[in-house]
This record gives sequence, structure tokens and C-alpha cells, in this order.
Amino acid sequence: MRIALDAMGTDEAPASEVAGAVAAVEADPDVHVVLVGDERRVSAALKRFPRQNRVTVVHAPDRIMASDTPTSALRRPRSSINVGLRLQKTGEADAFVSAGSTGAVMAASVVLLRPLRGVDRPPVATVFPTDHGLTLVADIGANIECKPRQLVEFARLGAIYMQDLQGIERPRVGLLNVGTESEKGTEVLQEAYRLLAGSDLNFVGNVEGGDILRHACDVAVCDGFTGNILLKFYESVAAFVVRKLAPDLRRNGLREEIQDRLRDLDYAEHGGAPLLGVNGVSVICHGRSSPRAIQAGIGVAARAVRSGLVAHMARDLAAAREGRL
Amino acid sequence: MRIALDAMGTDEAPASEVAGAVAAVEADPDVHVVLVGDERRVSAALKRFPRQNRVTVVHAPDRIMASDTPTSALRRPRSSINVGLRLQKTGEADAFVSAGSTGAVMAASVVLLRPLRGVDRPPVATVFPTDHGLTLVADIGANIECKPRQLVEFARLGAIYMQDLQGIERPRVGLLNVGTESEKGTEVLQEAYRLLAGSDLNFVGNVEGGDILRHACDVAVCDGFTGNILLKFYESVAAFVVRKLAPDLRRNGLREEIQDRLRDLDYAEHGGAPLLGVNGVSVICHGRSSPRAIQAGIGVAARAVRSGLVAHMARDLAAAREGRL
Repeated sequence: MRIALDAMGTDEAPASEVAGAVAAVEADPDVHVVLVGDERRVSAALKRFPRQNRVTVVHAPDRIMASDTPTSALRRPRSSINVGLRLQKTGEADAFVSAGSTGAVMAASVVLLRPLRGVDRPPVATVFPTDHGLTLVADIGANIECKPRQLVEFARLGAIYMQDLQGIERPRVGLLNVGTESEKGTEVLQEAYRLLAGSDLNFVGNVEGGDILRHACDVAVCDGFTGNILLKFYESVAAFVVRKLAPDLRRNGLREEIQDRLRDLDYAEHGGAPLLGVNGVSVICHGRSSPRAIQAGIGVAARAVRSGLVAHMARDLAAAREGRL
Repeated sequence: MRIALDAMGTDEAPASEVAGAVAAVEADPDVHVVLVGDERRVSAALKRFPRQNRVTVVHAPDRIMASDTPTSALRRPRSSINVGLRLQKTGEADAFVSAGSTGAVMAASVVLLRPLRGVDRPPVATVFPTDHGLTLVADIGANIECKPRQLVEFARLGAIYMQDLQGIERPRVGLLNVGTESEKGTEVLQEAYRLLAGSDLNFVGNVEGGDILRHACDVAVCDGFTGNILLKFYESVAAFVVRKLAPDLRRNGLREEIQDRLRDLDYAEHGGAPLLGVNGVSVICHGRSSPRAIQAGIGVAARAVRSGLVAHMARDLAAAREGRL
């Protein structure tokens, strides 16, 4: 399979992307990575690695910066995000991975790949490492305010994702709320609770902020505002804990060992954030992605392609629409 | 000063409360704690400590449970929450501390103590231990949805709290949002940004989820939904990290040392959650409060009384109302 990788996304572009791509094809003989970006710079970075047939380059001279507006990639057809997504549209690639501006990748993915029928506003999701496995949180920022129906869509898409990519049979869906009782939270959440409880999904009820790390559910549903605040807070925890424990760890020569173990808390290491519910695969990685995180993002995209995630979502949405679930 | 302490709040009531009260009066010769609860049970628990003149008991036979409705304390005049708050109303106590049902303590406090003039909906706040000090987060659950004006009130009340209780000269106020630019977030947040930027407060702009532990502000303002999710998530982090690191720590005999250091992450150890903007002092502690956490809650109440926090808030609100700021 061919995965288009935006080579101009990370702060260290294209070095992180190139190293991540090389590692990904070495780890998976089915994967071919198409690096999309400034051809000269990308090829120069590639020279540092042994020649690898399954890494190729497609030229895209324009780079979208974090300071650009979300619609910029759409308005700039020669940007690496636009070129990369169009490779998928034309069938030259099966998936797209980018560590570029989240807003720009989201907007361009929705417009160029199109939402699946039955999806109002595609959410971005990501996994939180917890006690006993991963919990997918959706949405983490694409939709700041949500209607009850949208939250149900997030639940459905998230459940299929965890089924196909993590092999979880009937993913437990929780609604992130300020209490477990059905009447808790805003009217939107009360109505979402009612809809989820009446759906075919394996709804376990409301979950609270403290339930996530205890792995109370496989999919935690929330609006993009709440998810974004929570994700960024979580991202800051590992480094904070290391700073907090630094004196003890230094004294006992444990710093690196502990840092290594806490690296598992880094969601980037688990493959970035897929945009769910579009007619294609688009995975958004952190702007500070290491080669390892880029490789993980490619790995998620490859698993999504291999499992037929998009077709599965389309089937499930159609069945839900027709009341067959 | 006299602090009324709900003796029937914690899961271990009245044992935790009694031990916390005794520790508090031993630590502060100005403090007299009035234990409010089932007289026989409280007196029995007190017998385990050396006689202490500055700990007395007021009988309140009714206990509000976590499963009771928020208005239950108001409807049950002989409940420890109701009796304790009325002691403050009649001048027999200067402050009230409870580890009982958060909803019940909030509702009863607002009705019995009354909001200060200029306060629409009193927020509950609590401090998050961060890298370089404490960040007060307000609201953490009293007001699930907020108007822009309310968020500005939370900012004002929170700033005075951090000034009086933590000695911070001009507390930096941040608005919790999904990005730093003024146009980020919901319309409510955009308008709150505009109001805060035009106020006399030391507004540092939007802060993101990852900025809190980096101590980007002294007061982080948000609606009670977001604050509640974040607080409960934060509460779950220390235990999660300890579980995560358990193998390394056990091997190196470091478990207790690390656990001890992470205890500082427990907001309860810093004194629970004050209800801000009412005409009195009401501090809500966690239902699982240890005697140490109860003592910390009493300590916060004592500092609030000593600093004249309520009068300061009333003065500042009047000045803001009259455009004198």
C-alpha cells in the first residue's frame, strides 16, 4: 500500500519525516511511503539513509505554517498538504499522514476527501494510554461545539476505529460528563446520553474526568473543546512528573529509566490523531513529532488501510441509517 | 476565630474530621473548631485525643449523603451542612468547612450565605499544584454553562483569592481555551476574552490545557464543566503514574518516597475548594479527605477569615461596579 506523508509538517521537517518514513518501510514490507514536499530538501535528507525503493518523493514546493489559517492548504494547491491529500483522491495513495497545522490538515481533509454519508462533522480522535490499554477520545478539537447527534456519530466512528485498529470486540463507549447520572451536564449531553442509551452501541454511561486513566471505557466521547483541553493537559503531565521527581530520580540514577517508561504516556508514540468519518484515511501527527512518532502515524494509517476501516464505517453508517442495527 | 466543621462529610466520618480538627487547633492557637454532627459519635471519636478546649461539638443528627439531591441540605434543617452554615449566619462561626456532598454544600452555601452584590453565580475554585506554584482553577463544577460576564466574575474573585491567600501581587488571569488567539473557542469565550482584555485585571490571554502545569497563570478561568473534567482528570494522575512506575520503584525501593512527593499533586492537600463570591467562607473538601486534608481545609478557611477575604471581594466588586477600577 502507498501512504502519502507530508514531508514538511514537523518543526524538524523534513528530517523527522524522512527518518520516520525509512523506519516505517523497514518495519513493514507492505508499506510504500510517498514523501510530499520540497523535492530538493527531501531528497537531500533521504541521502543520509541507505537507498530504499519503497520511499519515493513527490514535489510540493509550498509549506503551510502553524500561523496560516485552516483554509490555507485549500487555497494553495502546491502545498504539501493539498498535494498529499490529492494523491489519495486520485488513487495514487491509500492514506495521508501529516504533522502539519492541525486546522489546515483537518479542513483540507474534509473538503478533499469528503465526509462519509451520515457524518455531519468528522471528529479528530486520539488514544490516551491508560492503565489497561488505550482509550480513544473523540473529538479532540475539530468541533468546538457539538449537537447530541454529532456526539453519537463520534461514538459510532470511534467504536469502529477501536474495533478495527485495536481489535476490541464491542468497544465500551462512555460520554464524558461531570457525573455518572443520566441527568448530569448540559442539555446537549443529557440528550446525547438518551440517544446513546437507545443505540446499538455498547454504551456504558457517563464517565468522569478521573475515569479515563482507569480505562473505564474504550471510547470517550466529548466535544472538541473539552477533548482538546484534556489532551493538551495530558500531554503536559509526563514532563511535569519527571520535573517533579527529578531530585529523587537523579539521586538514584533513575531519570532515564523513568523517562523512558513515561514515554508510553505520549499519545504521539501511539500514532497521532486520525480524522474519522471521511472517505479516506488522514492521520494528524504532533508538530513536534519525532521520527518514532512519524513512524507510529504511518503505522496507524497502514492498519486503517489494511483493516478496511473506511468501508467498515460506511457500511455501519448505512446500517444505522436504515435502522438495521 | 471559630470554624464550623461538618463532622459527617467524609467517607470516614467522623474520624477524619475529628483528627483533622484536633491537628488544626494544635497547629494554630487562634483557631477554634466547632464540630457539627451526631453528638454521640463525634464525642466518642474525640475521646481518642487529649482533651482540647478549642474543639467543641454542636449536635446535628441528620447526614446528607452523596446520593442525596443538591437541595437536600436546605430541606433538612437538622443536617450537619445546614446547622454548620447557620452557625456562620448567626455569627457563632466565622467559616464553614465540609467534605460532604459538593452539590449540597454549594447549594446550601449560596442560599444561606447569599452571593455578594455583583456576583451572579458563585464559582467553586481549587488550586492545582504546578511547576512553580499554585494555579487556581475557577469554576470547577458549580456552573456547568457560563455567560461571558460570569467568567469575568470568576476571574475577579479568583484573583482576589490568590492575592489574599497566596500573597500574589497582581495574579495573572488566563482564560482556558483551545488556542492562544483571541478569536479561539466559542462565542462565549471570545466575548469573555474581550471583556477580560478591557478590564483592570492582569489578563494574560488565553491559556491552553498544556499551560496549566507550566504555571502560565495564577488563575485559570473556565466554565464548571471544563474545570470539573480537568480537576478529576488531574486527581487521577498521581495514582496512575505511581501504578505505571511501580515496577521500577519497587525494584529500587523508591515507591514510598515517590508516592510522598506525588502527594503534593493532590489538591486536597492544599486545602480543598472554596466557594467564592458568597457573603461568608465555605470550603468544600474531598469526600475521601484524610485528616491532613481536613486540616488543610480548616487552614484555608482560617486564612480566608484572617485576610478579610470576603470584605475585600465586596469592596472590589463595588469598585468594579462603580467603574473605579
